[in-house]
Amino acid sequence: MKNLLDDIEDILLMGPGPSCVPQKVYDALSKKTLGHLDPYFIKIMDALKEMLRNILNTKNTLTIPISGTGSAGMEACFVNLVEPDDKVLVIINGVFGVRMQDVATRLGADVDVLEFPWGTPAIPEVVEKKIKSTHYKIVSIIHAETSTGVMNPVAEIGSILNGSDTIYLVDVVTSLGGMEIRMDDWNIDALYGGTQKCLSCPPGLSPLSFSDKAMEKLYSRKTKVPNWYLDLTLIANYWGSNRVYHHTAPINKIYALYQALFLIFEEGLENVFKRHQENHKYLVEGIEELGLKMLVDEPYRLPMLNAVSVPEGVDELAVRRRLRNEFKIEIGAGLGPLAGKIWRIGLMGHTSKKENVTRLLNALKAIL
Amino acid sequence: MKNLLDDIEDILLMGPGPSCVPQKVYDALSKKTLGHLDPYFIKIMDALKEMLRNILNTKNTLTIPISGTGSAGMEACFVNLVEPDDKVLVIINGVFGVRMQDVATRLGADVDVLEFPWGTPAIPEVVEKKIKSTHYKIVSIIHAETSTGVMNPVAEIGSILNGSDTIYLVDVVTSLGGMEIRMDDWNIDALYGGTQKCLSCPPGLSPLSFSDKAMEKLYSRKTKVPNWYLDLTLIANYWGSNRVYHHTAPINKIYALYQALFLIFEEGLENVFKRHQENHKYLVEGIEELGLKMLVDEPYRLPMLNAVSVPEGVDELAVRRRLRNEFKIEIGAGLGPLAGKIWRIGLMGHTSKKENVTRLLNALKAIL
Repeated sequence: MKNLLDDIEDILLMGPGPSCVPQKVYDALSKKTLGHLDPYFIKIMDALKEMLRNILNTKNTLTIPISGTGSAGMEACFVNLVEPDDKVLVIINGVFGVRMQDVATRLGADVDVLEFPWGTPAIPEVVEKKIKSTHYKIVSIIHAETSTGVMNPVAEIGSILNGSDTIYLVDVVTSLGGMEIRMDDWNIDALYGGTQKCLSCPPGLSPLSFSDKAMEKLYSRKTKVPNWYLDLTLIANYWGSNRVYHHTAPINKIYALYQALFLIFEEGLENVFKRHQENHKYLVEGIEELGLKMLVDEPYRLPMLNAVSVPEGVDELAVRRRLRNEFKIEIGAGLGPLAGKIWRIGLMGHTSKKENVTRLLNALKAIL
Repeated sequence: MKNLLDDIEDILLMGPGPSCVPQKVYDALSKKTLGHLDPYFIKIMDALKEMLRNILNTKNTLTIPISGTGSAGMEACFVNLVEPDDKVLVIINGVFGVRMQDVATRLGADVDVLEFPWGTPAIPEVVEKKIKSTHYKIVSIIHAETSTGVMNPVAEIGSILNGSDTIYLVDVVTSLGGMEIRMDDWNIDALYGGTQKCLSCPPGLSPLSFSDKAMEKLYSRKTKVPNWYLDLTLIANYWGSNRVYHHTAPINKIYALYQALFLIFEEGLENVFKRHQENHKYLVEGIEELGLKMLVDEPYRLPMLNAVSVPEGVDELAVRRRLRNEFKIEIGAGLGPLAGKIWRIGLMGHTSKKENVTRLLNALKAIL
């Protein structure tokens, strides 16, 4: 029987995630497995929590990785915070906002939607008006909308919510590790990220943090969290000082996340963010030189996810196939209403290097 | 800053999981990450599904790994199959049966419990009487109760349910890869396993399979699955021929599971099961020579999880600490009502080797 793993190629991952993984993170992933209650593993867990707090700029006690991908983090935030009929406002300007609406609706929330055109950001004044018109228990938004490449004004909306009893829930799946996140300063109460974007760690964990306000809402629920696996009251007992067994933590993935954060702090957060900005600018210049157009207006562009409009008459799938097969480069397709209309070029974490941008630009030049 | 990963020791994992991981599985874990929609990754997914079907002896189309640990598999089975007020029977004789009750209750099921003394198996005649007294939509049981070391008569209960419209839901987290599972022959409709037990793959995925009958119940739901992340109608579209993006699959974990199954089929299923039996017998002999007693009566003992009663007057925690610190061996403690009363010795997958049993017996001799 043939082992397919023997022939895995080294593909340059320039899609919307997963991104390229540094060798040291691969090495961490394959360190000897310890037990999930082993005293040394607990030390690693504690150090990991501290690094997560640092990268999120938060003092929140409950700052941990959830044992699932970024979408599990979304599910965890909503299922722990939503009770049936809670008024929830979901701000939407892309696929991941729509996903939030779906998740919250399934959980019995009374969901209002405030939608902005895809490819443009949410407008704080419009959000403010909506928030003042109704008393929402939860307001949620995507920081970096991976489906469009738009950065939403998370800090500004946080200051609108300052002092209210509304829970502010933010998706930082794509922004985490690629741009600044100031959870406490921005009044964010609940937040979840992903590992396979700017943290450059293979997918499988979702960093999550809950403020005291979010924990209060959780602990004052009238009914148990309708999801045993993601019940943060139970998970907090495992990750907290009690160390009560809940489920078996994905040990080796936790090693990898530890190592990924370690590398980021070694490089320095400021340097990492600067590198993302610089390579993004370099890519945009090259894209425009090729006569291609960015989907998003300049002030709202994400450094790590670049949406490029597919030129009229070009078969976008054929281009992606040639990139993958001939040039060993993966880029992403458009999602939902943007399917067929854009390419999504990721410059996330370890992928965000000048030489990678050059390689992609040369390949695009050859194909187009 | 010190990197804690540099000092991870090689601990012999003889607890209730995680078990020892073969070097080839570690190597698989650190192969180059591919995109979750990459054509070559899709080949690996397809081959993995086929191996899962083979190890489970099933033809079920929906046979896939869930992106979470074994407990996520439990959550996935119940959340997809349970609708509010469904009559569910949970057979309990240990911690994991209790967990099933908790999961199903949170989802609004009308749960009946049939409990057997912990350390003894379910009795088919008693189950039959219960099933005939009430029309249950779902009957669930744990195959290998990890908290007690008891094997439940899953095949016999399956034959009682044969021909009924009741969904038969079985947890094979600990049995999978260590003893025979005949999903189709035993009339099992929904089943989930774990990777960190007898598959000897680090934790983070849960193999799951749904029969046509289970799929029919899923597709005839009156309401959407109240869990977007684990909604099998969506996940089936990603793992099926449509390849519709749902969440980013944990790529490298999937490589590792592929490799773990590959090794099992290379050794041969029969040989693997025989090895588990032989090392279990060797352990039991040694345990009894030391004057210790097994918790479970001989016919109901699991080969991969051995519950040993802690002798009167012995500080069980002190023994486990010395094993860990001096002898670099991890064994498990008792859970729930068995806390402090038993040790749980795992002989799962790659851990199940004569030399490991000898090493543990020598260490126990030195300590006791």
